[in-house]
Amino acid sequence: MADRVEPIFFPRSIAVIGASRHKGKVGYAILRNLLVNEFQGTLYPVNPNAESVQGIKAYPSIGDVPDQVDLAIVTIPADAALEAVEACGKKGVRGLVVITAGFREIGGIGVERENRLKELVKRYGMVLVGPNCMGVINTHPDVQMDATFAPTPPLRGHISFLSQSGALGVAILDHARNLKLGFAKFASLGNKADVSGNDLLMSWEDDPETKVILMYLENFGNPRNFVRIARRVTKKKPIVAVKAGRTEAGSRATVSHTGSLGGSDIAAEAAFTQTGVLRANSIEELFDYAMAFARQPLPNGRRVAIVTDAGGPAIMCTDFLIENGMEIATLSDATVASMRAWAPPEASLRNPVDLIASAGAAEYRKAVQAVLRDDGVDAVIVIYVPPIVTEEVAVASAIVEASRGSPKPVLCNFLGRSEESPGFVELVTNSIPSYLFPESAARTLAAMHRHRAYLERDEGTFPAFEVDRSAAGRIVAAARAAGRTRLRETEAMDLLKAYGFTTAKTRMAKDVNDAVAAAIAIGFPVVVKAVGPALVHKTESGAVALDLRDEKDVRAACARIAKRLEKAKVLREGFVVQEFVKGGRETIFGMVRDKVFGPLLAFGLGGIYVEYLKDVAFGLAPVTDMDARRMIRSIRTYPMLEGVRGEAPSDVPALEEALARLSLMVTDLEEIQEVDLNPVAALEAGNGVRVLDARILL
Amino acid sequence: MADRVEPIFFPRSIAVIGASRHKGKVGYAILRNLLVNEFQGTLYPVNPNAESVQGIKAYPSIGDVPDQVDLAIVTIPADAALEAVEACGKKGVRGLVVITAGFREIGGIGVERENRLKELVKRYGMVLVGPNCMGVINTHPDVQMDATFAPTPPLRGHISFLSQSGALGVAILDHARNLKLGFAKFASLGNKADVSGNDLLMSWEDDPETKVILMYLENFGNPRNFVRIARRVTKKKPIVAVKAGRTEAGSRATVSHTGSLGGSDIAAEAAFTQTGVLRANSIEELFDYAMAFARQPLPNGRRVAIVTDAGGPAIMCTDFLIENGMEIATLSDATVASMRAWAPPEASLRNPVDLIASAGAAEYRKAVQAVLRDDGVDAVIVIYVPPIVTEEVAVASAIVEASRGSPKPVLCNFLGRSEESPGFVELVTNSIPSYLFPESAARTLAAMHRHRAYLERDEGTFPAFEVDRSAAGRIVAAARAAGRTRLRETEAMDLLKAYGFTTAKTRMAKDVNDAVAAAIAIGFPVVVKAVGPALVHKTESGAVALDLRDEKDVRAACARIAKRLEKAKVLREGFVVQEFVKGGRETIFGMVRDKVFGPLLAFGLGGIYVEYLKDVAFGLAPVTDMDARRMIRSIRTYPMLEGVRGEAPSDVPALEEALARLSLMVTDLEEIQEVDLNPVAALEAGNGVRVLDARILL
Repeated sequence: MADRVEPIFFPRSIAVIGASRHKGKVGYAILRNLLVNEFQGTLYPVNPNAESVQGIKAYPSIGDVPDQVDLAIVTIPADAALEAVEACGKKGVRGLVVITAGFREIGGIGVERENRLKELVKRYGMVLVGPNCMGVINTHPDVQMDATFAPTPPLRGHISFLSQSGALGVAILDHARNLKLGFAKFASLGNKADVSGNDLLMSWEDDPETKVILMYLENFGNPRNFVRIARRVTKKKPIVAVKAGRTEAGSRATVSHTGSLGGSDIAAEAAFTQTGVLRANSIEELFDYAMAFARQPLPNGRRVAIVTDAGGPAIMCTDFLIENGMEIATLSDATVASMRAWAPPEASLRNPVDLIASAGAAEYRKAVQAVLRDDGVDAVIVIYVPPIVTEEVAVASAIVEASRGSPKPVLCNFLGRSEESPGFVELVTNSIPSYLFPESAARTLAAMHRHRAYLERDEGTFPAFEVDRSAAGRIVAAARAAGRTRLRETEAMDLLKAYGFTTAKTRMAKDVNDAVAAAIAIGFPVVVKAVGPALVHKTESGAVALDLRDEKDVRAACARIAKRLEKAKVLREGFVVQEFVKGGRETIFGMVRDKVFGPLLAFGLGGIYVEYLKDVAFGLAPVTDMDARRMIRSIRTYPMLEGVRGEAPSDVPALEEALARLSLMVTDLEEIQEVDLNPVAALEAGNGVRVLDARILL
Repeated sequence: MADRVEPIFFPRSIAVIGASRHKGKVGYAILRNLLVNEFQGTLYPVNPNAESVQGIKAYPSIGDVPDQVDLAIVTIPADAALEAVEACGKKGVRGLVVITAGFREIGGIGVERENRLKELVKRYGMVLVGPNCMGVINTHPDVQMDATFAPTPPLRGHISFLSQSGALGVAILDHARNLKLGFAKFASLGNKADVSGNDLLMSWEDDPETKVILMYLENFGNPRNFVRIARRVTKKKPIVAVKAGRTEAGSRATVSHTGSLGGSDIAAEAAFTQTGVLRANSIEELFDYAMAFARQPLPNGRRVAIVTDAGGPAIMCTDFLIENGMEIATLSDATVASMRAWAPPEASLRNPVDLIASAGAAEYRKAVQAVLRDDGVDAVIVIYVPPIVTEEVAVASAIVEASRGSPKPVLCNFLGRSEESPGFVELVTNSIPSYLFPESAARTLAAMHRHRAYLERDEGTFPAFEVDRSAAGRIVAAARAAGRTRLRETEAMDLLKAYGFTTAKTRMAKDVNDAVAAAIAIGFPVVVKAVGPALVHKTESGAVALDLRDEKDVRAACARIAKRLEKAKVLREGFVVQEFVKGGRETIFGMVRDKVFGPLLAFGLGGIYVEYLKDVAFGLAPVTDMDARRMIRSIRTYPMLEGVRGEAPSDVPALEEALARLSLMVTDLEEIQEVDLNPVAALEAGNGVRVLDARILL
């Protein structure tokens, strides 16, 4: 597949439109960065008021440049920028990076401008990054392009980073340099009028320079494409994302900042989980993860050895490892004995290996070698607290030496030693990540293990079910034709049946006699429920009668319900008579159509588990069979479905199938806005599930 | 109250025993630090092999020093150290800091040495810090004592810090200096053979130099004293603690590191909650909190204004504020209008106030002033992402100026600007804490608010109940006399009655006829349960029959149970017959005696809530009435006790009283090792609670 963004990242010639002689102007900084970082192609400053800019011959307009221009960086004010873009199109420029602000993000006239810009880009077949962005970088030695106005030149490396916030991008490049983190490519996406995050993911998927992809996101342009693409890319290289707007207030702030809807964070979280994108909870974690993923192999398992010269930080590290799902390795007797040969008697050689404060480079080298060689160890964290006579560089070198060539990851915590300390520099320039605090190393190693587990996880397939699409279509069409946005209970049940659900036998009844007839047709015992527009929580309003065993029961129940509702002045349209399903555990299946991500499925146990304990699993439709399996197993109360306190286990495979069928139904029928199957009785293993109540909104 | 540790922190003369001329020796570093940091009293190096050390006349032994010595710092090897300590005693030295290792922490001979040391200290009435520690600091200008071997001299300030890990202490002093954090006092406690953390808390409680107390803990020496003292101190000044060993593996590492039991982390967490000690989850958070608590006032409420020049980090900040229980303030129209007068049109002036990238010092000054003046704002976070033309010092000064004299806290995030940046230095030297990342500022502000809320919270009183202590004593004594460690069910019920619990009427019965007689005495309906040593989960083994309405029911139930247990080969001793309590919600009360903290109370809803959802509240006995109230309200399922889905509310005041009574019972009767009241039926409001089953171990 052709790489859409190739004109952006691999230009042989660049025009800077608005190149300036004045420090402090964006057009100055960008040309300066291109020059200082030795762009390998030809630069053309465009400036109508200067003969030359920063020593380079300038041209009054893009049309005046005598040679082919591959990429134009536009820094002039919005209205002039539009003219320049048109001129670029005419000139045959292929790539555009529009730094200029004043487009969609300011609303009103800005939205018009952005539409105009898109139209020009389309008309001339150009590719555009921005507007309202801070530029792009490609550190490849054949290109060496720093087309940003960031004050810090990037180091070359294997991280590619896309940022939806220009300011954050600048700050991240700045801080990354302190951490000696190198980048392959960088793009600030701004308003994403053309090039999206998805375009970059596709481009970087096969980029040999890119080993890790970082993202700072505020919203998703085309989330369904994102899910499809990310699912593929994460199997090749890790994607670490920070998404702002986790909370409702944060999300509101996002909207006011970018003018775009963020979608619910629950849906975004489901997307990350399903696609194996690692979510960093903070900018700090993004850096922490980037350092390790770019530099170290993934661990093959959970078992971690800790080598330290001080007990306290090793305990902190242990706590964080365990809390993040890792284990403390049990060292073999041989490993311990080999260390006993040289370690001081006060050293504690069981994991954590505490070499005590007298430990120097030699002890660290031998201990790290010993634990790396132990088959019971999957990864090593080395903690060093510089004592009185600091020899931190020697210790750092010893760790580098001991871990060279090992297929197991080694992470360091030189306590309190930040990016200026010589030990830190020695470690990171030799591919060993080092952290200020033990907890950061522990959290990062756990994330590496999560990614390893993800790579090995079975993604499953989208199950093929025989369903009656034409019957389903008829039901939906009929309700729409009648102007109803809510399906009748019997319609909802029929729709579910068309998608292969087993529903409790259900009939509508206008009055008592009808209800008796329906009960006889279904067979006793039955349930009778009142139906009416205001009746949502039927049990609370006393509008349900269970386990009615004969005609007399049904008559009495109908009378009782009618009386109660009259008293409460609740309008009743009639009754629903339903087969009484005995036993089973109440579960809930749901779907809401997220404005951004589309159908979001929910599963949980019935009643208070959902309402008060928020014990619900979410997933984006369509789900694979394995997605459904993981969703059902991920609720905290899952053990109850396996049978507790001597109860029989529920039919979990049937629950999985029902979830996959619901996924298919809401993917097929885009008219369905909301589904609430509550309750669905999960019967004993082998007996399937029964939908007892269904609310479906169109 | 006399200050026990006064000889340690306020000496007029110090002897360094083992003072050395050789760099790299502890005895060199300590004398050097005392000299370089200009100790205000007189120093006496003790070294039998030198005329002078570091330019100061040396003495062969402490006995040879011609003047009074207040404090001796001992750095020589363990056996010689013991002799020196004895000589100190004879000389009349009042305070000792024993740096030397090789005591309890190495086991065996070390334990003997430590006992010897304690005995000497006691015999001569000295006060001892250590052994196996890194020293003490007092920055008071009248003292200026840096008696540590840390490479970094401390700044003067208002934080006092006690550390159970010497290594961590060194690292923290080191990093704190980078952050410009100043200390009042510091002590590395080592093995705590004499001076404990509690001694220091009591000393610092009234120390005018100390405004914030930090602690790094691995275990608690006397946790009950800690609870009592901390409860008092936190009302005067904040205590921030990091406790290592949160997980079981971490706790094991603690034991192997210090040779002391850590107690369960659940109990430690309960102690922190009840005493208002702020727990920092990591060393990084400890620093984050220290910076703000030492420098800024507490917020009066949750409403935060954010001033920024970039959207992205403001959204991240918003997310973290909300997740930590804070709110985004709604700015008044007047505030917004006042900013509109000077802000660029693209600026977004509703909170977060986004001044956009062009914002400079003037805009920041005006915006910070405006939001601080708004009555709807309790605290301000200022975010600054240095753009192309950085004027970070000017912006920092503007923030300092704008917030001067305000009673509201102001915290900064100069994104990615660490401790070397001039903006950071300008802020922190003017008492404005600044953080690398927006999330750190948000988390810290939330901790300040938590502390504010704690200061205002009603601690309640220990309720006085009329209880029958002699009856209780007789029950326990009888069981002990019979060699039983588990009370019979009827004994347990009687014991609970003696403490004022309402229990379901309960009688023991040897056989069926007995059971019938008991049922008649109690009154129908009744419950029959089998009793026997192996019968713990009675319901699962089918050893319980409910709602028996007459003699026939009782006979049938006894027969059924007997048959079932025979088949399962379970030994049965007889039956318990009990009043059948209808309705009510099942709750569980429990107590385990923590090895370190003593009685730990537990409360939760019955069944799966406890087992699978871990929805349990813990508290250390004795609890006040308000502690009990907070415990019961802190479970996630508390709304169910208030009545959900039309159900009647449960008798919450009766639950609170029951918890307080349980607290009194297990505090009075130290023989009780474990209590499990499961279930306790919480009846409808006004009807109290009924204990239905009780297991009490001695």
